[in-house]
Amino acid sequence: MNQYNVAVAGATGAVGTEFIRLLEEREFPLGSLRLLASSRSAGKQITFRKEKLTVEEMTHDSFQGCDIAFFSAGGARSKEFAPSAVKSGAVVIDNSSAFRMEPEIPLVVPGINDNDLHDHKGIIANPNCSTIIMLMPLAPLNRLSPVRRVIVSTYQAASGAGALAMQELIDQTRRSLQGDVLDPKVFPHPIAFNLFSHNSKVDEDGYNEEERKMIQESRKILHNPILRISPTCIRVPVLRAHSESLNVEFEHRPSLESVYHALQNAPGVVIVDDRTGNRFPMPIEASGRDEVLVGRIRHDLSNENAIDLFVCGDQILKGAALNGFQIAETLIRRGLLENWKRHHELSVAFHSH
Amino acid sequence: MNQYNVAVAGATGAVGTEFIRLLEEREFPLGSLRLLASSRSAGKQITFRKEKLTVEEMTHDSFQGCDIAFFSAGGARSKEFAPSAVKSGAVVIDNSSAFRMEPEIPLVVPGINDNDLHDHKGIIANPNCSTIIMLMPLAPLNRLSPVRRVIVSTYQAASGAGALAMQELIDQTRRSLQGDVLDPKVFPHPIAFNLFSHNSKVDEDGYNEEERKMIQESRKILHNPILRISPTCIRVPVLRAHSESLNVEFEHRPSLESVYHALQNAPGVVIVDDRTGNRFPMPIEASGRDEVLVGRIRHDLSNENAIDLFVCGDQILKGAALNGFQIAETLIRRGLLENWKRHHELSVAFHSH
Repeated sequence: MNQYNVAVAGATGAVGTEFIRLLEEREFPLGSLRLLASSRSAGKQITFRKEKLTVEEMTHDSFQGCDIAFFSAGGARSKEFAPSAVKSGAVVIDNSSAFRMEPEIPLVVPGINDNDLHDHKGIIANPNCSTIIMLMPLAPLNRLSPVRRVIVSTYQAASGAGALAMQELIDQTRRSLQGDVLDPKVFPHPIAFNLFSHNSKVDEDGYNEEERKMIQESRKILHNPILRISPTCIRVPVLRAHSESLNVEFEHRPSLESVYHALQNAPGVVIVDDRTGNRFPMPIEASGRDEVLVGRIRHDLSNENAIDLFVCGDQILKGAALNGFQIAETLIRRGLLENWKRHHELSVAFHSH
Repeated sequence: MNQYNVAVAGATGAVGTEFIRLLEEREFPLGSLRLLASSRSAGKQITFRKEKLTVEEMTHDSFQGCDIAFFSAGGARSKEFAPSAVKSGAVVIDNSSAFRMEPEIPLVVPGINDNDLHDHKGIIANPNCSTIIMLMPLAPLNRLSPVRRVIVSTYQAASGAGALAMQELIDQTRRSLQGDVLDPKVFPHPIAFNLFSHNSKVDEDGYNEEERKMIQESRKILHNPILRISPTCIRVPVLRAHSESLNVEFEHRPSLESVYHALQNAPGVVIVDDRTGNRFPMPIEASGRDEVLVGRIRHDLSNENAIDLFVCGDQILKGAALNGFQIAETLIRRGLLENWKRHHELSVAFHSH
């Protein structure tokens, strides 16, 4: 069996750390592993399978001999370094928003639109965390009966803003309990015992960037450019699992049985819907889990063609690192990584003549 | 000017405490004040305007000479004692859900349906907190253009479950930060750094009691028995202000200017909608405030006749005690308390002959 050399760009961040943990703990045909970060983090040591690896500063030459590069170092660094990685022959799986809406770059949630991977040209984009978690139940339901319109309100964890934001939630909550003045640094507003509208730029029609991502990325992934979605993205004092309240309107009224059946058979989705025990998806139960939890499944009393759902998913796992990892697994399983290597070698041979 | 003798039933609870604070701090033609609670709390001393008042055990005779009784001691106690208070000649303003859907009992949000007070027969019901906070912007918009359908997802504070629930959020968060096992007592699930579907009974169509209250009470208050509402009620780790994400569909598309104008002129509503500064309603800013904060005001991109809003309101104030207090103020201002006293005296005189 082939082995693949992997680079993790942004190795010291919340998502980078999770990529490393996935490579360590799961079955993966790993050759070498190279950990890359900014000069600030270079020199740090990270233990991987009992071996100490040193974090290197990312340069344009960092990707020599690399087959897969997981990028999670912010959009600016992806734009700067991903093309170099591709030139070196690697396939880049990019967790930033830098390339997601580029028409020629696949934006993929494994299990939903794997076939889009076949058109890749070296870079594959990992969708926004809120988009992925929403689509996990939405895509199988859209196959059951075409979705017309989605109203979604999110309850987003601190992790979506990175490891420092998670630390800010913890530290600020501790200070708040001591009666100290809250002093936000990472977030623009206090997060301890508070919540606020997502801190991304608000455009002139009143939606913020996070909401716009949910609309545009969902349309691209579901291949439905006219899908109507109205998201409201809210940050809540939760550590690492996003929740979303979904109202989904279909072309035709689906039976509740068919909705249950579609969700039960959807890979990566687990139904948590115990009406008698009042047990539904909760962030603390979704945290650390691969699957997205779905519950509160019911017909909407206000529209006979709509259903309501409540969803929780680990923002760092399926919302980010796990989805990227599954993209790599799908590329390998479908022979697309081998194709890319062959393509690259031919291209190098051609250009050297 | 007349003075009124007031009783607070449930004087040691979260809402009862706030009733007392309102009577202490605001202008109110207060005669005497009697504090009532269960036998467990009887004997406690509460300082009111520098005077120590002793909490008495509530009995059927507690309301002699009382003009207004604020009840906030749970539905069972309201059902047991409110009729005795009415027989004693008091007007009961009841914060429980015991009487809200009784057709002959007014359910009132002052500023929205004050005229319904004129039909009272001794008991006036204070609506559910989530209902009040939603209706504060919804009612003025409904006057602007008839509302057809509302999709609402709530972010409900611990205070909605009482003072002990607020304490549980604080204590459990402290324990969670120390790495201790969480051990929920008041709530059925951990609330520290978590959220969960509202812990009220779920009925066979999948909606819980809290959601059903929002539907039924809104219809009664707005005098629109066919208003279509689909709520999803979620408890979040916030102390005392509820937030709600609203999608409101109208018969006709309202201009954004007319929506702003209607909300600007709505008493008790304050617009917080700074798109450039990314400043919108937040629970920590709504806490302790009389007004309900409204922001994220925008046309829904998924439906041309709908708008989206994000609302925060203090659950204990406008969501409960302040609304009840305003009911009392309205009764006084409209002479309805005097009418009731006269009616009661005549009735006593008639029956004693």
